Amino acid sequence: MSSVAAPRIEKDLLGTLEVPAEAYYGIQTLRALNNFRLSGVPLAHYPKLVVGLAMVKQAAADANRELGYLSADKHAAISQACARLIRGEFHGQFVVDMIQGGAGTSTNMNANEVIANLALEALGKQKGEYQHLHPNNDVNMAQSTNDAYPTAIRIGLLLGHDTLLASLESLIQAFAAKGEEFAQVLKMGRTQLQDAVPMTLGQEFHAFATTLGEDLQHLRRLAPELLTEVNLGGTAIGTGINADPRYQAIAVARLAEISGQPLKAAADLIEATSDMGAFVLFSGMLKRTAVKLSKICNDLRLLSSGPRTGINEINLPPRQPGSSIMPGKVNPVIPEAVNMVAFEIIGNDLALTMAAEGGQLQLNVMEPLIAYKIFDSIRLLQRAMDMLREHCVVGISANVERCRELVEHSIGLVTALNPYIGYENATRIAKLALDSGRGVLELVRAEGLLDDAMLADILRPENMIAPRLVPLKATV
Amino acid sequence: MSSVAAPRIEKDLLGTLEVPAEAYYGIQTLRALNNFRLSGVPLAHYPKLVVGLAMVKQAAADANRELGYLSADKHAAISQACARLIRGEFHGQFVVDMIQGGAGTSTNMNANEVIANLALEALGKQKGEYQHLHPNNDVNMAQSTNDAYPTAIRIGLLLGHDTLLASLESLIQAFAAKGEEFAQVLKMGRTQLQDAVPMTLGQEFHAFATTLGEDLQHLRRLAPELLTEVNLGGTAIGTGINADPRYQAIAVARLAEISGQPLKAAADLIEATSDMGAFVLFSGMLKRTAVKLSKICNDLRLLSSGPRTGINEINLPPRQPGSSIMPGKVNPVIPEAVNMVAFEIIGNDLALTMAAEGGQLQLNVMEPLIAYKIFDSIRLLQRAMDMLREHCVVGISANVERCRELVEHSIGLVTALNPYIGYENATRIAKLALDSGRGVLELVRAEGLLDDAMLADILRPENMIAPRLVPLKATV
Amino acid sequence: MSSVAAPRIEKDLLGTLEVPAEAYYGIQTLRALNNFRLSGVPLAHYPKLVVGLAMVKQAAADANRELGYLSADKHAAISQACARLIRGEFHGQFVVDMIQGGAGTSTNMNANEVIANLALEALGKQKGEYQHLHPNNDVNMAQSTNDAYPTAIRIGLLLGHDTLLASLESLIQAFAAKGEEFAQVLKMGRTQLQDAVPMTLGQEFHAFATTLGEDLQHLRRLAPELLTEVNLGGTAIGTGINADPRYQAIAVARLAEISGQPLKAAADLIEATSDMGAFVLFSGMLKRTAVKLSKICNDLRLLSSGPRTGINEINLPPRQPGSSIMPGKVNPVIPEAVNMVAFEIIGNDLALTMAAEGGQLQLNVMEPLIAYKIFDSIRLLQRAMDMLREHCVVGISANVERCRELVEHSIGLVTALNPYIGYENATRIAKLALDSGRGVLELVRAEGLLDDAMLADILRPENMIAPRLVPLKATV
Amino acid sequence: MSSVAAPRIEKDLLGTLEVPAEAYYGIQTLRALNNFRLSGVPLAHYPKLVVGLAMVKQAAADANRELGYLSADKHAAISQACARLIRGEFHGQFVVDMIQGGAGTSTNMNANEVIANLALEALGKQKGEYQHLHPNNDVNMAQSTNDAYPTAIRIGLLLGHDTLLASLESLIQAFAAKGEEFAQVLKMGRTQLQDAVPMTLGQEFHAFATTLGEDLQHLRRLAPELLTEVNLGGTAIGTGINADPRYQAIAVARLAEISGQPLKAAADLIEATSDMGAFVLFSGMLKRTAVKLSKICNDLRLLSSGPRTGINEINLPPRQPGSSIMPGKVNPVIPEAVNMVAFEIIGNDLALTMAAEGGQLQLNVMEPLIAYKIFDSIRLLQRAMDMLREHCVVGISANVERCRELVEHSIGLVTALNPYIGYENATRIAKLALDSGRGVLELVRAEGLLDDAMLADILRPENMIAPRLVPLKATV
Repeated sequence: MSSVAAPRIEKDLLGTLEVPAEAYYGIQTLRALNNFRLSGVPLAHYPKLVVGLAMVKQAAADANRELGYLSADKHAAISQACARLIRGEFHGQFVVDMIQGGAGTSTNMNANEVIANLALEALGKQKGEYQHLHPNNDVNMAQSTNDAYPTAIRIGLLLGHDTLLASLESLIQAFAAKGEEFAQVLKMGRTQLQDAVPMTLGQEFHAFATTLGEDLQHLRRLAPELLTEVNLGGTAIGTGINADPRYQAIAVARLAEISGQPLKAAADLIEATSDMGAFVLFSGMLKRTAVKLSKICNDLRLLSSGPRTGINEINLPPRQPGSSIMPGKVNPVIPEAVNMVAFEIIGNDLALTMAAEGGQLQLNVMEPLIAYKIFDSIRLLQRAMDMLREHCVVGISANVERCRELVEHSIGLVTALNPYIGYENATRIAKLALDSGRGVLELVRAEGLLDDAMLADILRPENMIAPRLVPLKATV
Repeated sequence: MSSVAAPRIEKDLLGTLEVPAEAYYGIQTLRALNNFRLSGVPLAHYPKLVVGLAMVKQAAADANRELGYLSADKHAAISQACARLIRGEFHGQFVVDMIQGGAGTSTNMNANEVIANLALEALGKQKGEYQHLHPNNDVNMAQSTNDAYPTAIRIGLLLGHDTLLASLESLIQAFAAKGEEFAQVLKMGRTQLQDAVPMTLGQEFHAFATTLGEDLQHLRRLAPELLTEVNLGGTAIGTGINADPRYQAIAVARLAEISGQPLKAAADLIEATSDMGAFVLFSGMLKRTAVKLSKICNDLRLLSSGPRTGINEINLPPRQPGSSIMPGKVNPVIPEAVNMVAFEIIGNDLALTMAAEGGQLQLNVMEPLIAYKIFDSIRLLQRAMDMLREHCVVGISANVERCRELVEHSIGLVTALNPYIGYENATRIAKLALDSGRGVLELVRAEGLLDDAMLADILRPENMIAPRLVPLKATV
Repeated sequence: MSSVAAPRIEKDLLGTLEVPAEAYYGIQTLRALNNFRLSGVPLAHYPKLVVGLAMVKQAAADANRELGYLSADKHAAISQACARLIRGEFHGQFVVDMIQGGAGTSTNMNANEVIANLALEALGKQKGEYQHLHPNNDVNMAQSTNDAYPTAIRIGLLLGHDTLLASLESLIQAFAAKGEEFAQVLKMGRTQLQDAVPMTLGQEFHAFATTLGEDLQHLRRLAPELLTEVNLGGTAIGTGINADPRYQAIAVARLAEISGQPLKAAADLIEATSDMGAFVLFSGMLKRTAVKLSKICNDLRLLSSGPRTGINEINLPPRQPGSSIMPGKVNPVIPEAVNMVAFEIIGNDLALTMAAEGGQLQLNVMEPLIAYKIFDSIRLLQRAMDMLREHCVVGISANVERCRELVEHSIGLVTALNPYIGYENATRIAKLALDSGRGVLELVRAEGLLDDAMLADILRPENMIAPRLVPLKATV
Repeated sequence: MSSVAAPRIEKDLLGTLEVPAEAYYGIQTLRALNNFRLSGVPLAHYPKLVVGLAMVKQAAADANRELGYLSADKHAAISQACARLIRGEFHGQFVVDMIQGGAGTSTNMNANEVIANLALEALGKQKGEYQHLHPNNDVNMAQSTNDAYPTAIRIGLLLGHDTLLASLESLIQAFAAKGEEFAQVLKMGRTQLQDAVPMTLGQEFHAFATTLGEDLQHLRRLAPELLTEVNLGGTAIGTGINADPRYQAIAVARLAEISGQPLKAAADLIEATSDMGAFVLFSGMLKRTAVKLSKICNDLRLLSSGPRTGINEINLPPRQPGSSIMPGKVNPVIPEAVNMVAFEIIGNDLALTMAAEGGQLQLNVMEPLIAYKIFDSIRLLQRAMDMLREHCVVGISANVERCRELVEHSIGLVTALNPYIGYENATRIAKLALDSGRGVLELVRAEGLLDDAMLADILRPENMIAPRLVPLKATV
């Protein structure tokens, strides 16, 4: 990064450093930059987190202004700076690594410094002239990292939640549409990878929609339940030391307005300062969705296996040539990528869980990792769902003839005949079919166990894929 | 196992086996016993699971009787057998390993066979005379393992849920009581293991109660949400093949009555047959509670560290001599054991997650592992909470003088003086104290920055542990 | 547990307790029994651990005798008691839960007390008359839990290692035998579940043997590397406080003789006291084997899927009826159970990893969980491998015709023709085959691209399943 | 990305796409770019992987040239392109996401296309004029993704291994240096966070060096053991179909020369194609190192806790201001960040483990995730170790007086007196000290149990921190 202008000198309790002239961040951000060269993923990678920080700073400034602790000029300048961040400007100034020691202090200071310098310029001052408006004394007034940072994480997650839900909902609709499209495609169901009994391909895809629909409901409900309670106002450890008794209520109310989220103040701020339970459960829910997506993608890969030596009931849309050595090979690359994303999310959940367990006494210093992993899981999940829908599900077609053929040659068909020819006959026919390689229906016809009309009736799809009143010989 | 009476011969589609004369289980259970010698943990280890199975069999028998498929005699005999199992009798007959292939078929058949043989004896027949009452045809009538088994797991979990909640609630009360007991004990709060600002020991213990209280609410709500929807009536793959169309509604309603649980039929039985999402989220919630308990126990171990070279703010009740070589050593053995239980539960959650991901097409064959791990986690969690409360929390005492002494000698105290002497003075005093080894208050007094009356007022516990209107020089 | 004789009273630093008259364990074991009712798995569940403890006690007694600290009488009595435990007697006296606080003190004291009381009886005294021979002063002389316990764990693991290797080796041989049996069975290879190119079923099974063979080598080498270095002699924290300077060398040499293992003393006893790295890596290796077994079992389930609507290239031996509702269904229950064991072992590895990470300063108090999980993983792994071999692999048969048929109808066959007809022709034929449903060979013949003799030569199994000099048009 | 020149049109079996004029990658890379927008981490993020790919392509080209399948001109052009990539040029062209479906085909094609276009330019042709030199036919000649890609991963890991070892070795030396620096600092050892017996701070830091030294040895040995066996030459599934029988030996020998690594061909190529065991064990070893680092950092945080209300035996160098609200607070940010990295690596190991378990039949399609996670873990581990050494360990200082004071006031000191005053006296004195708050030595002196000379002798550091011949009253 080349800097034509001379760097400015900034000072903190450890001494002085040269800050690049064009940088809106300051010395504390720079220290963090030097300290933590780990993941290479900067805060700016998660815009919603940056916006969440700006909203918290705005709400605090509003409360401090209302209580008379912040002058009108300073408040205006800070407000303008926050607004620009919220609009998406200057995110490139959020340079600290997502993995950082200090329980988020560097993230909080990155925000304080960028806002202070933006505000200073708005006041006609130079960056770094903190005597006019100070990152700590003014921007961070009445806050501690320990309340501002977890509050910003929650805001960031809430702000991105609708997009996540929308992606999930679109995917559900795509599966549901296929469920309708394939409603008449009769196929064999399989349990334990062994032939079971008939169903429709529509039922199978409809079940994908149903199972993800349950997750949509849970996610929709869990986010407000888990994330709207904030500890803003607790300052260092939740006792609210050095904060005005009226501050918390005003700041939280303002934050609710600014963010458009139904925020409320945590009842026990000591607890809320160190508790990571909300993130553990939320990540656990993301993990559940990932597990379901992985299972569905495994199914798609099984059902499309072949084309000649596998199940081959469905075709996935080809997305890229599958092999340089095998002509014509096309692979299920999209579901495979979803599987990998799912494993990544499960790994993230573990890292987050260990971080949550690593909290000590009045704070959890591992919070930056928790934030990183949960934002990462959400982003991956959303992208994977969009990819799956767009590049795979909407283009799936059924091999109707193949499906029917497999049903007709299956031995599992005998289950449907069970109530008519009896369990003993059914077992005998099944065994005979397996040993001889002949078809079940062929054998039933050959033995004259059922006539063609009856067989046709039993084997009508609508009769095999749902409960049916059959002539069971009741034992009464 | 010695058997005086001659074994009986039973037969299934693979051939015949000798079943011990006194065994109520039959050939299929015996095959599973021979196949699966893995964990060594039999079904009987989880009585609620056995009861859940019996309730499902009872409900199915009631429905089959009502629909006219089961004779009054058979129904009466089956009902009596189920009642005995529900009362806790004959659980020793549930011998199959919790880890088993076959997606629970062996568990289901263990139940079918035990009930059949108990019923046969009630009918005046010999065990094994299945021509009079058959494990499959009668006890398992209109069921498949694939609907009966997951339904029984859900019942089992619901039946044990109140006990789990009660243990959690008792623990919460124990922490809350200590919160009140220690309400006046002033101590230093710590963030990142570094001195922060004052709080009370009561606040610290109250926060333990609060954080577990949130889990109590979640657990109370999640269990009905996740576990009351059952797939009974779906038979093999959820299409309800070979079941009477009226069967599902009757069976589920009966099961709700028998179990006393607000059960409802799953809307999409295809989905419900293979979906393990409820268990993934429920286990995720158990993991969250485990993480919180582990964090709390880490805190208890830190706070009681010493007695001379650690923090030593609290005393845990001694439970056993701590060392054979170090006279007088007593260790925090109870919280340590809770930590280990927490790690076990986190490991269980992972095994369960992988099992859930391993489902394929119309069934998840890994369900037995899922059931095993979730029942195991619940049992461990409950026992650990009881142990923690009974053998540790209720006997914790505070070292009041030590707590106060640490506050008075701390440098963190300077934060409370901040609003009165200014941030610059505060920082200078803090540094001076650290370098000289002298106390903050001593230095403030020596410099005449605050008079004794003012200092006394500032340092009153009630003033330090909550927000307070301080004479901030507002910048307006 | 009913006890006819009156209990004896024992005393420790916390007071007195009644110990059942018939118990060989004493008050400290009893306290642990009362404290820890968690997993329900007692020490006796892992006999090799009990034997390891007895060997350590024997070696220590020998060293203490040699150095003159233990009288000949006491030494003889202790030796006799240890010998009985090593022979497998009195294991039922090892009653403490595998999950226990106190870093193994309760396990160590359980051993000390049982040995002391056995020795007392040998000396003609009553159990509990510790004035004659004391669990701490005599049996535990010159030891601390912190060196005796981890040493015993290592011995226990080493003693069981050959059995584990033998099970693995037998399984490898079973796969290798199938590799030879199926050496001539031509079949399609599959990548990404899509048809790839031909191979033999023998190659596939041989690869199972190869991949497990690599694990056999690693396991054989890792155990001595990781487990033979012991910290016996380090006493409380590795400084060897209160131990005779000559003690360590003598005790370790004796232990090596007694156990028959090539033990050596750790060079840095401070490090060796708290380090759990050996267990982390050993468990990581067990996890690797579990992952391979799970992958192999997934393959067996895929290859045997069907019988009519799956791949159906092999038959697994039927082990139990697969369904009560579907006549004739047989499921791959053995590989399924292996999958579950693998997930359990992966979960164990996680719990163990967290326990290892939880060590603090001079000790890892989570060692009991580490011991529990590693013994559990080994036992499960061994049992699963025996089960897999005995109940599944040895009985696998090939569906030779089905395999050949799939090759002949596959499109992947075209890859073998590639060098002869060119990539463009090959791609065109592949596409034509897929669209028309016709066979690749049929199309090639129809177009006269290759004559029958040439085709026959190309398609000879031995020509397709290995590199071959083909008439590539070199571009030189 | 703006492109002034008109894009070129490329074609594959799915149709045509516009490729940006300046791009050296081609249509298949572009398809992958469009398909996989997941992690946002491109291949170029791991330069050693890119270099590994180039080395494989070079070795294959050399073998193909030697066997006469590749013309001298093409070979020269390809060689020049590979050399440029190996030198670090054009890495920005490796744009595909690390998470990708297709088992690495996109990565392989990214390399093939970049090399082809670089070679074309060297031949005086335009990018995309593949009729002159083709990504598949020429660059990928005799290779499949399934052998080239895993081989390249291994090369990439081996190439970076020395750097990893160097970072670890430097860290070990830093701890060892502190071990010497603190060799005379007597302090209390702690077990279970409770006072145990004396040791030196030097012993403590030396143990950190020892424990990491063991990992250095394991890592040094495991990398060649696990990673030098390559499957190059196996082509699609390990049968080597369409490869010249002489090809494998030549290509592997060339690759060994080019990379400077002792590579050898896998004996069972079928096995080697799908086996991920090497990565599972290697990642397990990285996890072990991460666990150790996390434990060490936990210790550093405990030992530096305070400054007034914690242990405060050592000072970590301040790296950044710790709080905006608490004047003078400095936090252990560097060890905290290491903890988080460790959790991340443990999470990576899990994701990798699941990916390894997810292999099916002749291939593991999850290989891209495995590569991603293992490269990520190595990078994070190395950076964290460098950070820990440079920003923390080298600057640690001891609070010698505080350490000594804690020893003198400790009750654990009584253990050293044990052999002289007897266990009963020791226990009584310990209890008295604890109850009265008085010192152990003071009490011993007061009771006249030992004279001052004897006490001074016993308490000399060199006498307390190692085994010592003491006047034990032998019972002989």
